[in-house]
Amino acid sequence: MGRVVTPRAEDFPRWYQDVIAKAQLADNGPVRGTMVIRPTGYALWERMQAELDARIKATGAQNAYFPLFIPESYLTREAEHVEGFSPELAVVTHGGGKKLAEPVVVRPTSETIIGESMAKWIGSYRDLPMLLNQWANVVRWELRPRIFLRTSEFLWQEGHTAHADAADARAYARRILHEVYEDFMVNVLAIPVVVGRKTARERFAGATDTYPLEAMMGDGKALQMGTSHELGQNFARAFDITYSDSAKGVSHAWTTSWGVTTRMIGGVIMVHGDDDGLRIPPLLAPVQAYVMVVKDGEGVLPAAATLRDALRDAGVRVALDDRVDTAFGRRAVDAELKGYPVRVEVGPRDLAQGTVTLVRRVDGSKTPVAVDAVVDAVVRALAEDQQALYAQALKARTDRTVEVATLGEALEAAATGWARVPWAAVGAAGEAEANNQGVTVRCLVRPDGAVPDSEDEPDLVAILSRAY
Amino acid sequence: MGRVVTPRAEDFPRWYQDVIAKAQLADNGPVRGTMVIRPTGYALWERMQAELDARIKATGAQNAYFPLFIPESYLTREAEHVEGFSPELAVVTHGGGKKLAEPVVVRPTSETIIGESMAKWIGSYRDLPMLLNQWANVVRWELRPRIFLRTSEFLWQEGHTAHADAADARAYARRILHEVYEDFMVNVLAIPVVVGRKTARERFAGATDTYPLEAMMGDGKALQMGTSHELGQNFARAFDITYSDSAKGVSHAWTTSWGVTTRMIGGVIMVHGDDDGLRIPPLLAPVQAYVMVVKDGEGVLPAAATLRDALRDAGVRVALDDRVDTAFGRRAVDAELKGYPVRVEVGPRDLAQGTVTLVRRVDGSKTPVAVDAVVDAVVRALAEDQQALYAQALKARTDRTVEVATLGEALEAAATGWARVPWAAVGAAGEAEANNQGVTVRCLVRPDGAVPDSEDEPDLVAILSRAY
Ligand SMILES: [Zn+2]
Ligand SMILES: [Zn+2]
Repeated sequence: MGRVVTPRAEDFPRWYQDVIAKAQLADNGPVRGTMVIRPTGYALWERMQAELDARIKATGAQNAYFPLFIPESYLTREAEHVEGFSPELAVVTHGGGKKLAEPVVVRPTSETIIGESMAKWIGSYRDLPMLLNQWANVVRWELRPRIFLRTSEFLWQEGHTAHADAADARAYARRILHEVYEDFMVNVLAIPVVVGRKTARERFAGATDTYPLEAMMGDGKALQMGTSHELGQNFARAFDITYSDSAKGVSHAWTTSWGVTTRMIGGVIMVHGDDDGLRIPPLLAPVQAYVMVVKDGEGVLPAAATLRDALRDAGVRVALDDRVDTAFGRRAVDAELKGYPVRVEVGPRDLAQGTVTLVRRVDGSKTPVAVDAVVDAVVRALAEDQQALYAQALKARTDRTVEVATLGEALEAAATGWARVPWAAVGAAGEAEANNQGVTVRCLVRPDGAVPDSEDEPDLVAILSRAY
Repeated sequence: MGRVVTPRAEDFPRWYQDVIAKAQLADNGPVRGTMVIRPTGYALWERMQAELDARIKATGAQNAYFPLFIPESYLTREAEHVEGFSPELAVVTHGGGKKLAEPVVVRPTSETIIGESMAKWIGSYRDLPMLLNQWANVVRWELRPRIFLRTSEFLWQEGHTAHADAADARAYARRILHEVYEDFMVNVLAIPVVVGRKTARERFAGATDTYPLEAMMGDGKALQMGTSHELGQNFARAFDITYSDSAKGVSHAWTTSWGVTTRMIGGVIMVHGDDDGLRIPPLLAPVQAYVMVVKDGEGVLPAAATLRDALRDAGVRVALDDRVDTAFGRRAVDAELKGYPVRVEVGPRDLAQGTVTLVRRVDGSKTPVAVDAVVDAVVRALAEDQQALYAQALKARTDRTVEVATLGEALEAAATGWARVPWAAVGAAGEAEANNQGVTVRCLVRPDGAVPDSEDEPDLVAILSRAY
């Protein structure tokens, strides 16, 4: 097969752009930093939404929708917060054909507008916990955009919750972290993630505790795949979110926020993709089995349609490609690029012998399979290849992660992968020095891999890396 | 039960606002004309999305996502189109902390930006039809906002398709009209709709044919619930959407567009609501059966939980209300307001006799039902009440629709309902006169109720009404 995309080893960023273009995932939009998510890419997002939404609702959260436009004054209410965003804001100054009395901001997050509503909706302890989630677009002006990873507009899910006490807020923020995000990323996206704690320097403005999920990309860099935050009472104080309780009187609530974005699509590409294009984990794939008519011939089309129906009846997400007026080789390259987990190639010669060819994207293997054994073979291949992709990603991460003892060694290791180093050997001063060299502390974890309650715990391990 | 909302007969617009507030469907947003859709309201939208999305995909369309921000120049490309929108545009002049070289517009529709992409993506006849749909927020600055009906930001689905010829475009626009919209509105929303053709005056700018679905609200006014448009080659010419074909050479495509919005939620409220609040059709309802613990007592909570599980296992969308520390009367009023189709009231006294009380929102009837017959009774009630709501809405529309012969009679009838009048007795001049009196031609239909191909067909019937 000819070279369709730039090899990863030659130029990883170029490879990434090639895959996005050739697999028809997305285009640049006409306004700098915006993106058009094409049907092939958007189908990935829809599958992510469905899997995440079910998990989010299982925690008791309800979806709602808050306005795109936020009064500028809301963003100055919590000064610490606005400093993190103000250069990134898109500001609407004209509406209804005239200049607005007060400019409005296109939401960079809905935190303030949701806080304002919570303050109104919450009266007594009976209203707590209040667990809200929103699927929406947000805008943060981006000067160095990269599709899916950093775009001026992106799609996300943002959860905002209020609780009666710190323990309940912490338990919920961690439930989202593990039961929603980690479970989804590991079991659906087949991406190993390190779940840890951000340092004070890397923490979200206004949060008391930020828990990220970090994944290693195919070039050894880290991508933050999602975060869950405890905001303590900071946010509730700024927005006056209080509740009454006959025993305690009136108290400020404890809040959390948590989100994942379309950047996860970039993560899937950069973790699983190879030099032939995408490889989509079967549990994520909008099309799990791609039934291809190799060329027309006695009974080929009906046989392919029958296989499509049998696979669909077995619960497999399946598509039929019967475009026999387009060269098979071209269609096969396109199927590789798009990363369908398995292909079932139905041709007249094989069919005359009662077989079809099963092609597995994970390793490129091609196996003849008897027609009446196809459904079982596909179902088995999908289950195996979901595991295989996870195992490969985990091995790649392990191979590029080194345990070191000093900051100097860590910075050296971060040139090609991740360094695990005692946090005591880095500290705030070492972190600043690392940052100057383009390396960040991705997160802190306990020696056993668990999430720390504080960065002052003894024996914490810091993960240092370059990052997207 | 005390008066919770203003009676409809006293003040219909006030009743509408009361229901939205008391049923916790939505609030006004801080920026004028925007709305906060609360969980109870958003759950309706999610159910609408799920039902519509399945129907849209069944026609072969694929979802995609296009940017929120559109260069101002795109909207001047199709002059006819921009005239319809320019006073409604929200304009971003600042981004990234400075003034933008070219202002960008917050999408009032994605038609132009999708047209631009289609021009790029479509090469040959093999790429047609191209069937795209998007779920998104759009902004049209609104000076006289009313929640769900007219808001500066609203949520919608917008479909945009390109076809090789006029016949294919027409067939698809009508397939969306009937198989997606009409089927959904009649069978899920339980709202009778007249499906017709807009006059030239009412037609969408740039369209050659606009097909609306019109419903009568509880006050006799019309609400346009959705539209499907044929755009001929107008739009393809403006955006240079062409395709090649070995026989014909290069031709402009034929395009369609079609959409429905969160205003449908307003339609459901105004068609089915009564003086106790909402009535949600069972097939739409996020909660179809609301199991209420009347008060605590021997075995009451476990019995209620068992009923909840049994209903869920039978495929009923069910919620359990066991908040026994809140007065039952207050919870019952809230359940009426929110319009749950059936309530199952579980109390200690009834339970001692082996029964619970089934309350049907459609008619307020309360019936004792043996515990082991509840699931069957609920399933039957849901099916019957879906039909009952449709029948009531149809009767209300029939009662308030009169057949008249002249424009004068039609205008008189439009004071309280709909007038059906020969289009030949109205014409363009009569339509202008009606408009001056606040009455519009909602649509034209054939005598047998079918959708006309042109407004010049003989014997067409015009429906005149006041409208939202
Ligand atoms: Zn904050
Ligand atoms: Zn147009």
